[in-house]
Amino acid sequence: MNPTDSDARLQAALGEVTSLLERHRVLEKWTRSQVAGRQREVVEALVHRQNLAELSHRLRSLHAADVAYILEALSPDDRALVWEQLTDAAAVQVLAELGRAVREDLIARMPARALVGLCARMDSADLAYVSESLSPEVLEEVYRTRSAGERSWIETVAAYPEDSAGRLMLDDYVGVPDSSTVGDVLALIRARGQLSRHLDALFVVDVRNVLRGVVPMRALLLHELAKPITDLVTPDPVVLRPTDRLSSASEAFARYDLVCAPLVDDRGKLLGALAVDAVLDSVNARATKDIQKMGGLEALDAPYDQVPFWAMVRKRGGWLSALFLGEMLTATAMGHYEAEIARAVVLALFVPLIISSGGNSGSQAASLIIRALALQELHLLDWFRVFRREMLSGLTLGAGLGMIGFLRIILWQGLHLTDYGPHVLHVAAIVCFSLVGVVCFGTLAGSMLPFLLHALRFDPATSSAPFVATLVDVTGLIIYFQVAALILRGALV
Amino acid sequence: MNPTDSDARLQAALGEVTSLLERHRVLEKWTRSQVAGRQREVVEALVHRQNLAELSHRLRSLHAADVAYILEALSPDDRALVWEQLTDAAAVQVLAELGRAVREDLIARMPARALVGLCARMDSADLAYVSESLSPEVLEEVYRTRSAGERSWIETVAAYPEDSAGRLMLDDYVGVPDSSTVGDVLALIRARGQLSRHLDALFVVDVRNVLRGVVPMRALLLHELAKPITDLVTPDPVVLRPTDRLSSASEAFARYDLVCAPLVDDRGKLLGALAVDAVLDSVNARATKDIQKMGGLEALDAPYDQVPFWAMVRKRGGWLSALFLGEMLTATAMGHYEAEIARAVVLALFVPLIISSGGNSGSQAASLIIRALALQELHLLDWFRVFRREMLSGLTLGAGLGMIGFLRIILWQGLHLTDYGPHVLHVAAIVCFSLVGVVCFGTLAGSMLPFLLHALRFDPATSSAPFVATLVDVTGLIIYFQVAALILRGALV
Repeated sequence: MNPTDSDARLQAALGEVTSLLERHRVLEKWTRSQVAGRQREVVEALVHRQNLAELSHRLRSLHAADVAYILEALSPDDRALVWEQLTDAAAVQVLAELGRAVREDLIARMPARALVGLCARMDSADLAYVSESLSPEVLEEVYRTRSAGERSWIETVAAYPEDSAGRLMLDDYVGVPDSSTVGDVLALIRARGQLSRHLDALFVVDVRNVLRGVVPMRALLLHELAKPITDLVTPDPVVLRPTDRLSSASEAFARYDLVCAPLVDDRGKLLGALAVDAVLDSVNARATKDIQKMGGLEALDAPYDQVPFWAMVRKRGGWLSALFLGEMLTATAMGHYEAEIARAVVLALFVPLIISSGGNSGSQAASLIIRALALQELHLLDWFRVFRREMLSGLTLGAGLGMIGFLRIILWQGLHLTDYGPHVLHVAAIVCFSLVGVVCFGTLAGSMLPFLLHALRFDPATSSAPFVATLVDVTGLIIYFQVAALILRGALV
Repeated sequence: MNPTDSDARLQAALGEVTSLLERHRVLEKWTRSQVAGRQREVVEALVHRQNLAELSHRLRSLHAADVAYILEALSPDDRALVWEQLTDAAAVQVLAELGRAVREDLIARMPARALVGLCARMDSADLAYVSESLSPEVLEEVYRTRSAGERSWIETVAAYPEDSAGRLMLDDYVGVPDSSTVGDVLALIRARGQLSRHLDALFVVDVRNVLRGVVPMRALLLHELAKPITDLVTPDPVVLRPTDRLSSASEAFARYDLVCAPLVDDRGKLLGALAVDAVLDSVNARATKDIQKMGGLEALDAPYDQVPFWAMVRKRGGWLSALFLGEMLTATAMGHYEAEIARAVVLALFVPLIISSGGNSGSQAASLIIRALALQELHLLDWFRVFRREMLSGLTLGAGLGMIGFLRIILWQGLHLTDYGPHVLHVAAIVCFSLVGVVCFGTLAGSMLPFLLHALRFDPATSSAPFVATLVDVTGLIIYFQVAALILRGALV
């Protein structure tokens, strides 16, 4: 391809993207992610051509979240180059949008001086959010630019557990004394000159900073200046504590359709605010984690493409080896029945069928219960009700599969598709009865293990489907060969 | 237990809950879901005592979302009784919070006249949301109370696909002409007398109702009355179309930290608004669906406890039978190697180990790729890159497991724990090499199947782990016995 030709194509692509952006992006028949994908291609092309002037011009027209998306998709070297083209103001915003892995990669490449300069421009909440990625020296430098109050707020926030509401706390809420009128509040807001774009309510506090209530911002637009603010307070507002887990905070946001909620300490003092955008991100992150854990691997904590090859192999290899070691018990279990298999090789043919049926029914039950526990549709005390119900389900499903298995064996023999020997009826009965047992056990194991882990305060998602499958496989083999021994005792003697 | 005693305990419980509610609920060391659980117990107790006066009194103090939560947890008969105690105003709110299954159960029990009365009190968006549960006759009655414009808006909304942004569209947004000043807008809002609690922005339109921009509500609090509204417009706002899928809308909300977004048609005309609370619900619902599909069952569409026993058995039995029929191929495949098994029974012992390793590696890869596709971290065009990477991962992981397997067999034989016969080295080699092949195949099948389904416009989550496992089991058996035939050809002749 000659350079003029590819330059022309790049120009055409640039024009296309620009026109898309100008027309409010999505009026065309493109989805947002397609637009973002195109933007990324354009940025990559500009990086490879080292066209830095055009690159920094283009970056200025992008939303910070889109720049973060592009940075996360680029190779580390390209990423560093793009990062250098950002203005300080843009870099501050982009840093708060980046995932931890990429953020730390960029921070590690920055000179300490530049990093301190950048952090000095951040608001307290963003600084608290990224502070875990900063070295103690840099952090100490940054704190010099802050008041003692800010420093202690940031340190408090950074000290809350990773999955707590406090860790994502904002401090740019509007707190007003309970003696205010609507007019007082409006004057206060005008004097501040800005309002958080994440918080749609103001918090009313008494002289000791104890939360008295929540007033939706929109109420200020609808009421007279002389109205006391306490008249507009939402009755019984949703109040969270910073130690609340994000999963239960997000349940409250989803149930009560919240945009923001105040965080208070045990004595009711106002500490900060939690906003729905942080909750939405955490809901997505949690679902990803659960799905990965259920798929039988450690949660990756970063998008697929950003996890280096060996880190990925380690994360997957660890679980895979653990499961493999567990599955070795199947070889041991089958070893006990070697003599039976030698006498009736036909028994071996159905081993995969039997154990996979147990595994499948177990993973069905496990995924149902894990999700129901995560969404708090079920609680620990419900275990016995679930036990009874799953026992019945398991027997019904096992009987169904057993019938299918029985008919399949008889039918294949009848049609002369396979020859299962003179004891075909016995074989069919063994498969049928052991399926009832195996499916029932699989269903019970799959549904009770999450409760057990929950009771032990582990994450139920760790009882991921493959783990249930391993447990069920070994037990399934034992059930199968015991049923076989029972039924064949008469027949083969 | 004598009645006075249990009455006293109920009174104590009531007192406890009341005091919790009065102290802003969560200031105590209780999580919200625990409080909701207690409320449900109290309501259940009141129902069983038929204490209807106290019941309706208590219901009046609860949030509509909490009443919906309690209704969803009750048995159908108790639910009907509680429902009858609600005031009309409360019932309207609760109906919009209920899941489809429970909503339709309650609607089916209501006399048509009462239902029409209830629907007449709903706003257009709520009515559009529940209209799918109403019979044509009831709907026709309800439309008589509405203007032609409202009717056509409701019908349009109800006609959008279930997983589209349009289906959750709101019509109570504030649209203002682009010639307005801040003062004009404030006057307009005061004249309306109310503002949607879900929308934190107003939409600026031209004379043809084409969207010109979005102004955050808070800007009205910060600027002078004379300021032209177009000066406050957010540059490049996020605009969605009603046909956008909820998954891509929720990606935009998460990426750009939105609270609401305007929905426009292909010519840019303003149709309605989408709010973050609907998006949050849909994100939760989608994650549940994906997890259930990956667990190998049809999505339930309702909480675990609300799905009747036989419906649940059908949903699970369908998939389980399909997988069972697939797994029957393993019996057929093993049938082909019956003679080999008869000659070397020791081969049968490792069958569960081999196929479960393939299945586990396949479900790992599948869950990674399915989630990455759902979050649009990966796109269709990335398949080849993923293929190469997963091929390498599969070989590495397979080699690792192969080594462990080899050592295990040699070690057990050396320690005289098991006797694998004179050909132990051959057996160990067979297990080792077939693990490399099986894990590699499992990884590739697990990662490529979601891409294939995505390309065919199916939901990748349907290529759920058990389905991958079935495919991998059959292929794994063939790989294992072929490797065995190859290695044993010399040894056993």
